[in-house]
Amino acid sequence: MSANDKLIETTVSTEQIFNGKVISLQIDTVKLPDGTTATREIVKHPGAVAVLAVHEGRLLLVDQYRQAMGRCELEIPAGKLEKGEEPAEAAVRELQEETGFRCDKLTHLHSFYTSPGFADEIIHLYLAEQLSAGEMSPDEDEFLEVREATLEEALDLIAEGRIADAKTIMAVYIWQLRNTRKSAGNGI
Amino acid sequence: MSANDKLIETTVSTEQIFNGKVISLQIDTVKLPDGTTATREIVKHPGAVAVLAVHEGRLLLVDQYRQAMGRCELEIPAGKLEKGEEPAEAAVRELQEETGFRCDKLTHLHSFYTSPGFADEIIHLYLAEQLSAGEMSPDEDEFLEVREATLEEALDLIAEGRIADAKTIMAVYIWQLRNTRKSAGNGI
Repeated sequence: MSANDKLIETTVSTEQIFNGKVISLQIDTVKLPDGTTATREIVKHPGAVAVLAVHEGRLLLVDQYRQAMGRCELEIPAGKLEKGEEPAEAAVRELQEETGFRCDKLTHLHSFYTSPGFADEIIHLYLAEQLSAGEMSPDEDEFLEVREATLEEALDLIAEGRIADAKTIMAVYIWQLRNTRKSAGNGI
Repeated sequence: MSANDKLIETTVSTEQIFNGKVISLQIDTVKLPDGTTATREIVKHPGAVAVLAVHEGRLLLVDQYRQAMGRCELEIPAGKLEKGEEPAEAAVRELQEETGFRCDKLTHLHSFYTSPGFADEIIHLYLAEQLSAGEMSPDEDEFLEVREATLEEALDLIAEGRIADAKTIMAVYIWQLRNTRKSAGNGI
C-alpha cells in the first residue's frame, strides 16, 4: 500500500449535468476512505496551453475581455487544445494566432492543474524563444490586443492587479527566477 | 475611452444551468465588439484562500485525493471562503483545520483568477508566519495528510509532477524568490 492509499475516494456513480462547447459538468458520488459517501461537482475541460514569450526583453501579453470576471485581463498567450492536438503544436498555434509571433524554439516548463478542487483543466506552459514577428489571426469570436512589458513593468502590473491570473503571475515569476540566474547563462 | 474599451463584451442574457453546493454554471450570451453575439460558459465559485506557510525551513503541504484528477495532489493548505467570511480569516481557519498550525502573522501576497476563460474563481494567497503547531480539524468529508518539504524537495516534487497545481507551484516560486533576497533581509 502506497503512503496515500488511505486517502483515496472511489467513484460510485456519475450524473452528467451539462455538455457545452468548452466545458462539461458532472456530479460524481464518491465513497470516502471511511466508507461514507459524498458528492463532488466536477468540471471537465479539454486542457489548454500557455506561452511565456519574451521578445527583445519584453514579455508578450494579450489584453482580452473575460466575461467570467466582467473585465479585461492581461494574460500571456493561451488557448484550449483542439481535438487530437499535441500541446506543443497548440502552443505554437496560439502564440501565432494571438500575437502574430512565430517561434523556432519551444521548451516545456510545467503542466499544472488550475482548480483541482472542482475542475480537471490542465495547462501546459511553454517557453517560446527565437521569435519572429508576423500577422495575428485570432478566432472569430476573439477580440484582443497585444501588449509588451519589461520584467519591471510586469511586476508592477501584478502589483496593480492588471495581471491577475495564475498562469501569467507564475510565468512572470519563472522569468524573474531565470533572470536572477542570468549570470550563470540561464536567463531568457 | 480607455485603451481597451473596444474589447468589451456586453451581456445580452444569462441562462442558469446548475446550482450546486460548491459551484454554479450559467451560459451567458454576449454581444461582441463587432456587434455579433457569442455564448460563454461560466462557472461561478465563491472564491478561495491558499496559504504559504514555512515552518522551520519546511513548506507545509497537504496531501489530498482530488476526484477531478483521480489522484492525490500535494498542495499548500487551501479552501473555499465561507459565506460572509473575510479572506484573511479564512486563511487562518484553513491553515488550522488542514495542518493544525496557528499563525500570528499573516501577509496578503496575491489575489488571482485560476481559470479566467470559464470560471470566476479567485484565490487569495497569504504568507503565514510565526507558526505554532496544534491539532488538525478537517471537514467531515475531507481526508488529508500533512507533509513538509524543504525548498529543494518542493522543487523536486514540482519536477516529478507530485506538486502539479498552479497555486502551489506559484507559492514555491514566491518562496524561492524570497530566499534569493534573503541576504537583503527579505527571506522567509
